Amino acid sequence: MARPIVTLTTDFGLSDHFTGTMKGVILRICPTAEIVDITHQVSAFEITEAAFVISEAYCYFPKKTVHVVVIDPGVGTARRPIIAEAAGQYFVAPDNGVLSMIYAREKHKVRAVTSDKHFLKPISRTFHGRDIFAPTAAHLAKGARPASFGRLIQDYCRLRFAEPQRIGKRVWQGTVLKTDHFGNLITNLHIAEFPSLADRPFQLHCGTATIDHLNATFAEGAPGEPLVVVGSSGYLEVVANQSSAAKILGCATGSPVDLTIW
Amino acid sequence: MARPIVTLTTDFGLSDHFTGTMKGVILRICPTAEIVDITHQVSAFEITEAAFVISEAYCYFPKKTVHVVVIDPGVGTARRPIIAEAAGQYFVAPDNGVLSMIYAREKHKVRAVTSDKHFLKPISRTFHGRDIFAPTAAHLAKGARPASFGRLIQDYCRLRFAEPQRIGKRVWQGTVLKTDHFGNLITNLHIAEFPSLADRPFQLHCGTATIDHLNATFAEGAPGEPLVVVGSSGYLEVVANQSSAAKILGCATGSPVDLTIW
Amino acid sequence: MARPIVTLTTDFGLSDHFTGTMKGVILRICPTAEIVDITHQVSAFEITEAAFVISEAYCYFPKKTVHVVVIDPGVGTARRPIIAEAAGQYFVAPDNGVLSMIYAREKHKVRAVTSDKHFLKPISRTFHGRDIFAPTAAHLAKGARPASFGRLIQDYCRLRFAEPQRIGKRVWQGTVLKTDHFGNLITNLHIAEFPSLADRPFQLHCGTATIDHLNATFAEGAPGEPLVVVGSSGYLEVVANQSSAAKILGCATGSPVDLTIW
Repeated sequence: MARPIVTLTTDFGLSDHFTGTMKGVILRICPTAEIVDITHQVSAFEITEAAFVISEAYCYFPKKTVHVVVIDPGVGTARRPIIAEAAGQYFVAPDNGVLSMIYAREKHKVRAVTSDKHFLKPISRTFHGRDIFAPTAAHLAKGARPASFGRLIQDYCRLRFAEPQRIGKRVWQGTVLKTDHFGNLITNLHIAEFPSLADRPFQLHCGTATIDHLNATFAEGAPGEPLVVVGSSGYLEVVANQSSAAKILGCATGSPVDLTIW
Repeated sequence: MARPIVTLTTDFGLSDHFTGTMKGVILRICPTAEIVDITHQVSAFEITEAAFVISEAYCYFPKKTVHVVVIDPGVGTARRPIIAEAAGQYFVAPDNGVLSMIYAREKHKVRAVTSDKHFLKPISRTFHGRDIFAPTAAHLAKGARPASFGRLIQDYCRLRFAEPQRIGKRVWQGTVLKTDHFGNLITNLHIAEFPSLADRPFQLHCGTATIDHLNATFAEGAPGEPLVVVGSSGYLEVVANQSSAAKILGCATGSPVDLTIW
Repeated sequence: MARPIVTLTTDFGLSDHFTGTMKGVILRICPTAEIVDITHQVSAFEITEAAFVISEAYCYFPKKTVHVVVIDPGVGTARRPIIAEAAGQYFVAPDNGVLSMIYAREKHKVRAVTSDKHFLKPISRTFHGRDIFAPTAAHLAKGARPASFGRLIQDYCRLRFAEPQRIGKRVWQGTVLKTDHFGNLITNLHIAEFPSLADRPFQLHCGTATIDHLNATFAEGAPGEPLVVVGSSGYLEVVANQSSAAKILGCATGSPVDLTIW
């Protein structure tokens, strides 16, 4: 009885007809689909950022959800459309590494979509979100078997996202994965990798700040005071109570973060 | 037969996974829910602005609608999650006063959500939208009885929003409640409080403008000419035809507005 | 069994209660409606831009879809609300020309909505999206006959959008219809009008660029190199690989584009 769910993650923005058009395509093929926007404001062409965003959201959706991820600087070229199956859900995307954080986390199978029978014709060279990815997702949502789209492949694109590097006996160098809407700096330092952080002295350097203890909530800091908290997915976040840590510290996505643990 | 409706009002913006994740949580618990975004672009941490926004929208929704309002600078602290019942609808929010304009307008009951049986575990300290408010709303939408979440309370937080102050025999001082997308300045001067405005001479001062008559439509003004109209909810608005009154007059949310009636 | 679909295209932005309120009105009248946002970020009052956006999206939606288009600088004045029937779908809008590109492309009928029986009362003078257009659309979605809203009219407003002008034996002057989210410049030069472009020498001038061949994909250009591609709807677009052609060339919506074909 539950409606099939299709989620959308793109860098299309919200000021054009692009996302509305994709939804029309999906609803014409699968009228019962429930379409959920994850975000359409991934920075243009930023595959790493999109990989992070979808990896934060998918696990909260029901089994069988179809996630469409279209960050596609290679649109119209030979890069393949793929369907990945992981965690009981489907992911439809260009094969450019945008699903790498799913691959790293979940047992998965990947297919190249080689059958064009479901595509909108004529296929444009500039809007595969409409002509390829939306109809593929809609047919999956409607119950088409993944195998009917193409064969399993092994040589799909896997990007190795910046993981913390150990650069000294007690020192790790990490990076900011994403700056969120509030200016919180989400690092790639995961509490599961540094479980001793709560008990042992440490120093974390990020931009102009040196922070030496963990806080539990934003509200524990004075307004504008940089804090480190364990974010909602386990990554360390450099934040500031009711302020933008990014602005205060002059940091952004990609900024280095050094962690020393004694 | 009608699907349960859950609305979302937050300051989360649209560039992260936050709103998509909340929708996943809701749909996993209540697969038939229809989720409606009111806005995710409340200014960060602005409880008053969110209180105004939800108070403008709720009454147009069907009975039983569940409104989730997450503007939550105190996330992770001891502030309570609450469920308010008013106008035949439900409101799920942190107890920080964000529902004050609903309380002022409607007969209401407020419960503290003390049972954590519906929460996502482990409960993060930074994303209660996902772990507390979304699942609470979804279970309400699915038919859970409000009493199953916790007891009625009387000491919930009520903020007294700036009401016009009488500062002279004929003079009231009001304020701008919100600047809308078009730059219209929505004041807290309600036509129901000043019914004589249509018939008697008056002067309204707002920024650099002095206006002495009511107009009915934006189009009655020359482009760029500041006008006063009765807005769609009865509040006086200072506007300009196809222009931003906020820019023209140098005003914003919180700016003072003086009204003299003879 | 399929739910009725209602789409929304407005210049309301996403930071106010406006779009959420319209959705509440629609769902209260037609609880089974599936509401799809095309965009709410049409530039304020820009009828031409909205006309282009809806003309790009409607044909991907199922028959019977109700498209609501509210770009309405004349709200509250005597301009009429209309229902257009075209391509097996419905369009609800103010009669200000915003549907002109639908009229140009499809056989159509237009009615003035003169019966106010479906409107929300009292009808405000500043928010007809809520009081007139949303309830009209919802009742159509619910199955009301178009004739029950008012009579067919012939004198509806048709705007003649800038079409390419032949300004020399071999020279056409066009214009930029819209700058999209990526900075691509979508011109009003349609490949169907210039089928010889692929085979004959040509020069297209746009801002500081002169381009003399067609490319198929964005990726064929070096980053920052201006290209001409046939966009996803057949219009020539001036683009740049992973860059904003608008910024690079100093062009925007309305900029002139000259095409010479030998």
